[in-house]
Amino acid sequence: METKKTKLGEFPFVTESYLLDFRGQLTIPMIGTYLLHAASIHAAQRGFGFADMNNRRTAWVLSRLAIEMYRYPGMSEHITLYTWIEDVGRLFTSRCFELVDASGVPLGYARSIWAAIDVDSRKPTPLDVEALSEYITQRDCPIEKPGKIQAVEQETGGVPYRVRYSDLDVNGHLNSIKYMEHMLDLFSLDMYDQKNIRRFEISYLSEGRYDMDLQLFMAETSTNKYSMAMCHEDKAICRAAALWD
Amino acid sequence: METKKTKLGEFPFVTESYLLDFRGQLTIPMIGTYLLHAASIHAAQRGFGFADMNNRRTAWVLSRLAIEMYRYPGMSEHITLYTWIEDVGRLFTSRCFELVDASGVPLGYARSIWAAIDVDSRKPTPLDVEALSEYITQRDCPIEKPGKIQAVEQETGGVPYRVRYSDLDVNGHLNSIKYMEHMLDLFSLDMYDQKNIRRFEISYLSEGRYDMDLQLFMAETSTNKYSMAMCHEDKAICRAAALWD
Repeated sequence: METKKTKLGEFPFVTESYLLDFRGQLTIPMIGTYLLHAASIHAAQRGFGFADMNNRRTAWVLSRLAIEMYRYPGMSEHITLYTWIEDVGRLFTSRCFELVDASGVPLGYARSIWAAIDVDSRKPTPLDVEALSEYITQRDCPIEKPGKIQAVEQETGGVPYRVRYSDLDVNGHLNSIKYMEHMLDLFSLDMYDQKNIRRFEISYLSEGRYDMDLQLFMAETSTNKYSMAMCHEDKAICRAAALWD
Repeated sequence: METKKTKLGEFPFVTESYLLDFRGQLTIPMIGTYLLHAASIHAAQRGFGFADMNNRRTAWVLSRLAIEMYRYPGMSEHITLYTWIEDVGRLFTSRCFELVDASGVPLGYARSIWAAIDVDSRKPTPLDVEALSEYITQRDCPIEKPGKIQAVEQETGGVPYRVRYSDLDVNGHLNSIKYMEHMLDLFSLDMYDQKNIRRFEISYLSEGRYDMDLQLFMAETSTNKYSMAMCHEDKAICRAAALWD
């Protein structure tokens, strides 16, 4: 039991009114914030957090994320987020999440893929496989891994967006959560009124910077399945997909 | 001591890397989020929270807010936010905040003015002065009250912004924090690189709605002092002021 507890991270949250969307539901970007919070503290408590990485002039970079929700928490719900390391490779590590309600019923799951970069060169750097592997946990995460996202960008058009101060993270790049926010803003309020996102997936391709002019694209690729692309100078810097029901 | 504790709310936070701006500092909107969090829980624990208000078909509306910061917290700092009710009138109540670092040294203070509205008519409704007054606390909040903000809007021009899904709060209106975010994005990255906002003040005049076309204005009104306005159809829906040093 002791070992198990050390590997698995457990984080309680209480949803507050100011964190909910107009439907009174927790949003995907807010769930993303919870995931990053849990990942960040879970890693720091095990010696591979932001500060530890920074001491070696390295940093974690979120590469892919998939979130599946069965039910979105509403007002003042006590929820618990579990996180654990599923696998560690030479360049990538996968971290899973399970979100449960106050009765322990699963609300959803998430899978994330992380790489480490050298903060000076901004290039990928090998992971400390041995140290990280110590925390690998066998636990079920019953959702598909992040997969290939269909390209939907066009040569012209797209919704323009210029990266602002509030979009930047501590490295001076477009914040992981803000990519989600801008892509999810492509859907109409009617869509949010009538449906829910069952699965959301995002793939970060390159870093957005201050004042960068972006073009956002979105298209339905099959019934209720949408792909999105965030482009800069005709090149996608991020792709996402949403399955609605 | 018991009574004192009941009146004063105390909320611990730990700053996380993903909450900081490109300078590694907590932002004004993030501090605003902490203030709303503390206010929301403090009120709920005393029987006048979101749910209690909603049961009476009323809701709290933030009218004005002033934040003064002596130092902005950086990475992984343990900070404590105190909040208390300073005064209760027929239509408005004032709530104060003190933010201290891990050694108890004040980082800054804030003052907020709240009104209650009837959620159906969206009109102000009288406060339960007797019940709220029970929690009035005598405690020093050594910053000036929110004051008059100089109008800086022009007939034409302004930075355009259209209200999006991610901007909406649980009432379907532009979220209090998003007003701040959009106004603070008017300052250049150079400005943030060289200076800090010593005092920030905001006055909410009317509600922003989905798809509303806004124009944002900003002008230096005296050395290092800037006013901002957020307008819709030539009418300000929000004003803000920032003093930099």
